[in-house]
Amino acid sequence: MSDLRRTSVQELLRSTDLDREVLVKGWVRTRRGNKYVQFIAVNDGSGFNSIQVVANAEQFPEEKLKADGVENGAAIAVRGKLVASQGKGQSVEIQAEEITVYGSADPTMYPLQKKGHSLEFLREIAHLRPRTNTFGAVLRIRHAMSFAVHKYFNDNGYFYIHTPIITGSDAEGAGQMFRVTTLSDTKPPLNEAGAVDYSQDFFGKATNLTVSGQLEGEVAAMALGKVYTFGPTFRAENSNTARHLAEFWMIEPEVAFFDLQDNMDLAEDFLKSLVRYALEHCPDDLQFLNDQYDKELLSRLKFVVENDFKRLTYTEAVEILKTAKQKFEFPVDWGTDLQSEHERYLVEKHFKKPVILTNYPKDIKAFYMKLDEDGRTVRAMDVLFPGIGEIIGGSQREDDLQKLQRRMQEMHVPEEDLWWYLDTRRFGSAPHAGFGLGFERLILFITGMANIRDVIPFPRFPKSAEF
Amino acid sequence: MSDLRRTSVQELLRSTDLDREVLVKGWVRTRRGNKYVQFIAVNDGSGFNSIQVVANAEQFPEEKLKADGVENGAAIAVRGKLVASQGKGQSVEIQAEEITVYGSADPTMYPLQKKGHSLEFLREIAHLRPRTNTFGAVLRIRHAMSFAVHKYFNDNGYFYIHTPIITGSDAEGAGQMFRVTTLSDTKPPLNEAGAVDYSQDFFGKATNLTVSGQLEGEVAAMALGKVYTFGPTFRAENSNTARHLAEFWMIEPEVAFFDLQDNMDLAEDFLKSLVRYALEHCPDDLQFLNDQYDKELLSRLKFVVENDFKRLTYTEAVEILKTAKQKFEFPVDWGTDLQSEHERYLVEKHFKKPVILTNYPKDIKAFYMKLDEDGRTVRAMDVLFPGIGEIIGGSQREDDLQKLQRRMQEMHVPEEDLWWYLDTRRFGSAPHAGFGLGFERLILFITGMANIRDVIPFPRFPKSAEF
Repeated sequence: MSDLRRTSVQELLRSTDLDREVLVKGWVRTRRGNKYVQFIAVNDGSGFNSIQVVANAEQFPEEKLKADGVENGAAIAVRGKLVASQGKGQSVEIQAEEITVYGSADPTMYPLQKKGHSLEFLREIAHLRPRTNTFGAVLRIRHAMSFAVHKYFNDNGYFYIHTPIITGSDAEGAGQMFRVTTLSDTKPPLNEAGAVDYSQDFFGKATNLTVSGQLEGEVAAMALGKVYTFGPTFRAENSNTARHLAEFWMIEPEVAFFDLQDNMDLAEDFLKSLVRYALEHCPDDLQFLNDQYDKELLSRLKFVVENDFKRLTYTEAVEILKTAKQKFEFPVDWGTDLQSEHERYLVEKHFKKPVILTNYPKDIKAFYMKLDEDGRTVRAMDVLFPGIGEIIGGSQREDDLQKLQRRMQEMHVPEEDLWWYLDTRRFGSAPHAGFGLGFERLILFITGMANIRDVIPFPRFPKSAEF
Repeated sequence: MSDLRRTSVQELLRSTDLDREVLVKGWVRTRRGNKYVQFIAVNDGSGFNSIQVVANAEQFPEEKLKADGVENGAAIAVRGKLVASQGKGQSVEIQAEEITVYGSADPTMYPLQKKGHSLEFLREIAHLRPRTNTFGAVLRIRHAMSFAVHKYFNDNGYFYIHTPIITGSDAEGAGQMFRVTTLSDTKPPLNEAGAVDYSQDFFGKATNLTVSGQLEGEVAAMALGKVYTFGPTFRAENSNTARHLAEFWMIEPEVAFFDLQDNMDLAEDFLKSLVRYALEHCPDDLQFLNDQYDKELLSRLKFVVENDFKRLTYTEAVEILKTAKQKFEFPVDWGTDLQSEHERYLVEKHFKKPVILTNYPKDIKAFYMKLDEDGRTVRAMDVLFPGIGEIIGGSQREDDLQKLQRRMQEMHVPEEDLWWYLDTRRFGSAPHAGFGLGFERLILFITGMANIRDVIPFPRFPKSAEF
């Protein structure tokens, strides 16, 4: 077969140049047929749909195919003629002339057989689940969304900044963090007080995995103007839920000279462009997920693209919730954080569209958010999505050095750890704003999947770091 | 100024629509002039060049500008008329009508003054160095290269896979790793043998920061066909050199049904496309680096694009080195790894072009590389670049289960840690190949910078995790 160049399955399925010799390589999804003819569905990962290979039983009797290992999961090469298909569901198929098996998959051992598997079971074999229709679709959409993120920012003049993963500072002044060390685990060096002497550790200080690249992103924005990060972040929270991961990817744009209004405009335009990109570039994968898991997926995605997000203040939202007919488990009071049930009520019942809430009470938000004139609220914004809740959290940042220092004192954030961050307010400070988008939350929304462990290739959560 | 929309400096510099009112926001790079007129160079990070603001001394006397803080580093907004420039070096300038200072930068405190700073000094203030010409250029090029990586793979049908950062396995069976834990640092739980009981740690097992996403990439390639990773990787090596970082970014494509030849073709085409992208998209930044740091930078980049890489086997290279006139510090013998001096001789003296060396002795390469028929060499490839040495390392992978298991035993890689990796050879195994490109090595080559700590925003190395 060596002089014939391989073609991808997606290319063949789109091809109108028929009755020619082709070479395809991929994995057997199904093999069925009778004593006259065998149909082999071959998928090479290039897209959702497989190509049908038709093998005449005279040349390829079923017993021989079986003996050669042409079974579900086997890697094969097929040389043959690309012809118009008589069957429904596909326009072309391959009349097999030569079939080569690279690697078989013993049907008595291979975990992925024809029948559907539960998502729970597939999580146990995360190394094989990309071979299923569901995870192939999810991972291709995940790729498309990653690219759409980079393309959006590149097209709009933003610069991608790789902020550090190992860090000595805690951006939120809060999150539970993973320690990073090379000291002996049983006999670390101790100082006179009996504590571990981190000056002897690899970095000469105690270090953790980052919870956010925002502070370093702000540093870069104060030089390059428009920047974004897209990298892994970590939370050592013992949360065994369908919404939390210990390791997840975050996108954080940060823009000099932006105020809260600009920030909301960016968030809305960005999210809409991502959803539009998915609708345009992943129709087959989305259609499958729509049919298989969530009949309202496509209409929900279109709805987000076509409608303005509702913007209102936290204070206005609290008024709406207080007068709502619905009974809530948690009471609503100005000054307390909104619960998931409240956010869902606003998005799914009251406004029936994505909502941007702004100007939250300062006491429930991070130290770096810009104080409003009233001294009680900050220029925060949360974007709330149907089914997901908060998908974006952001704010205009406090650009006044004294006000920032006061907030750090009030919230017990040590100045000496963030001297470099304060320098951005000391020298050439400017209004700026940004936000964080949890990438897996976005993928949940785009795919309609219910569990965040099913939208990342190898999920990390309490008691699980396999693969 | 509120009804006038801000324009970026780069947009203004390209504009031919003159004699109109514009609003620009950015930072003062220099202010100079006399008692009649002041010239303020404003840069907003959007590109290398600043725009010249001309401030008539009648309206803007120097004393008033000084008092208002219009000094190097200050963040300002300028409203004025965009006009053709009389000065050389720019086609347009702004006649200032209104200047607003957002944040000044006290000239007695601000570390970045007019005079040039050493790269060593700038490393100490990595939070401010993006404001310099050099680091602005490097970071914009770094962005362009990141985007070019994603664009290349997306355009060619590859899927981006986020492989895990926290891992229980060591891909190379070698690298020194950072431990990730949430156990008490002074009193971790111990088992009966007196060792730390990692079953009580966050993930229920000992975990480290990844040294490579390759093994998980292979898993994904065996389902999606063509994939790549682009993420942070970590080495806890105590190397205080201009070539090593403890935290760096790596790009790792992995392709099903690729052999060593395909892999070399991909590596060469990929690298050339990246260099071509830089030449097309970053002319100003590259020109500055060429003039300032490395007079041969641009010609070296063009040379790489225009010439085929020389391909030869390790064995052929050893023959060349043995008969070379040059004296080497380290002797060359078949079976030993090549030293930097040998690689440089081949690339810079003998062939005078990038070189791809293949088929290395198995004993100096990783367990997963495909054994050649002779049983002595493996289908490895290293791409060697002028000034950089090894920029890419890769191989065709061993796809035969038994041979792979034998290599793992010989090299003491425990099978039980990699059961999932072996499953890819157990079920539907196929020939495949891939490589790793150290992203910072690439940026060194593209920018002509000499120290790897100067091509990443916040470098991590022994005794340093500041910012």
